[in-house]
Amino acid sequence: MNEFDTVAIVGVGLIGGSVGLALKERNLARRVIGIGRRRSTLRMAKSRGAVDVTSTSLRNGLTAAQTVVICTPVRAVAELVALAAKSCPPEAIITDAASTKAEIVARCAGRSPGRDVEFIGSHPLAGSELSGPGAARGNLFENRKVVITPSARNSPRAIEHISQFWKSIGGDVETMPAARHDRLLAASSHLPHLIASVLAGATPSGVLDYAAGGWCDTTRVAAGQPDLWVEIILSNRSYILKSLDQFGKVLASYRQAIERGDDVRLRKLLQRAKANRDALGNRHPSGD
Amino acid sequence: MNEFDTVAIVGVGLIGGSVGLALKERNLARRVIGIGRRRSTLRMAKSRGAVDVTSTSLRNGLTAAQTVVICTPVRAVAELVALAAKSCPPEAIITDAASTKAEIVARCAGRSPGRDVEFIGSHPLAGSELSGPGAARGNLFENRKVVITPSARNSPRAIEHISQFWKSIGGDVETMPAARHDRLLAASSHLPHLIASVLAGATPSGVLDYAAGGWCDTTRVAAGQPDLWVEIILSNRSYILKSLDQFGKVLASYRQAIERGDDVRLRKLLQRAKANRDALGNRHPSGD
Repeated sequence: MNEFDTVAIVGVGLIGGSVGLALKERNLARRVIGIGRRRSTLRMAKSRGAVDVTSTSLRNGLTAAQTVVICTPVRAVAELVALAAKSCPPEAIITDAASTKAEIVARCAGRSPGRDVEFIGSHPLAGSELSGPGAARGNLFENRKVVITPSARNSPRAIEHISQFWKSIGGDVETMPAARHDRLLAASSHLPHLIASVLAGATPSGVLDYAAGGWCDTTRVAAGQPDLWVEIILSNRSYILKSLDQFGKVLASYRQAIERGDDVRLRKLLQRAKANRDALGNRHPSGD
Repeated sequence: MNEFDTVAIVGVGLIGGSVGLALKERNLARRVIGIGRRRSTLRMAKSRGAVDVTSTSLRNGLTAAQTVVICTPVRAVAELVALAAKSCPPEAIITDAASTKAEIVARCAGRSPGRDVEFIGSHPLAGSELSGPGAARGNLFENRKVVITPSARNSPRAIEHISQFWKSIGGDVETMPAARHDRLLAASSHLPHLIASVLAGATPSGVLDYAAGGWCDTTRVAAGQPDLWVEIILSNRSYILKSLDQFGKVLASYRQAIERGDDVRLRKLLQRAKANRDALGNRHPSGD
């Protein structure tokens, strides 16, 4: 028995490929259709067993899909949702996997006039500095938080469907408004990415030979794809700027303590940071 | 044949314990003496096979040591070098493993009047957020850079001895002035630690539930011991402040690009950061 009959995945990179692998490994879908622009990527996704069939045509690929998952970079999502809503069956449900939600949800509200197609934003908190279907894993979503951000227009049926979809591939689903998602992720994911990049970018090349584990850990996510991150960051600008301000305040406290040689204050700052870090332990050794 | 007859290690935590294990596993020393204040730590180091005998007395522990390695936190090093120079044999050579060098070398020059005991500063670029002899590993120094910072007063014999010591346990030895070491390490190690701590400390507690791999990687070293890091940071203040200023400049560029929605500029910044990060690849997956 397949819980989801036909699932279409638009964009079969790390996330899309992992959704496909998770569905196939757990025997949750009768047919997984991979849709994308690059034949080489589609071929790789198929050879890895992440999809059953592939298509470079959105229209052809979606004709029988009850569930559509858009796994492209942020900027392409809203347009693809609009196009998909015209091609898929009248009661299909569309979701995505992008790292920011408010802009997408705002643009996708009120789509598909005269049809029952619904869109619900999703963000699985999984990923890494790796990319492409070659890096996909069927267990990528296991015990990872998946935030879904329904709007007031969504039906309980669609919300339940998308919630069940992520749960079935291992996700720990949480529902919240898109704006709250974006505010939380600015601090938990987008700011760390920026700070890792600032640190990597601020390191003079002559210093790199002396970089050891501390530098490597702290800058790891700066290896991520710049194109993807430009889109993520600019689509969540206002919350990211607030997080940067908060970071700047704490940075100034550290600087002042160091300048003054204030060991008591510096120790307190480092202790507070350690307490936050220790609260998470070694959960999520990789991914983003 | 043991290359080093009797080696004394003062402070048998992660680094000291690893020095002992490396010597014993490679059969490089006839006798390794572990010296420390806490009996429980000494007992653990002995049970792990990192040392042959232990002592809580510096004087007793050092009577037969040709090589003395001080592996305590930064602030204790100079005083222990002075004390050790009075207790060890007249031609012994003392080194350390602390993360900053200029202050220690300056304080240890001109010690041990009337004797030939020499001190040469060392810093193995190995370590981690873990601590204690339980975390020690005999291969901790393999292919890791070890910087040694001789002064004009050191003899070629002593420099060769200490260089050979670290090489024999796997280190990739490089010689440079203490000030150059401190400038390089401010950027490659001390700044990353501070930035990881600032990020961890700036994260509101409600956000921690949404932290995934990016946050965890970027803040990992903030789990290090605050007491140790206060000493490291304050003993390298001026170079660290310069590194913080460099970081602040790059941070301001990112902020401006985000505020203006300047995707071209932001992409260039992220690309530069990625190029630096990619230059290191996945070397040194842990440690500091």
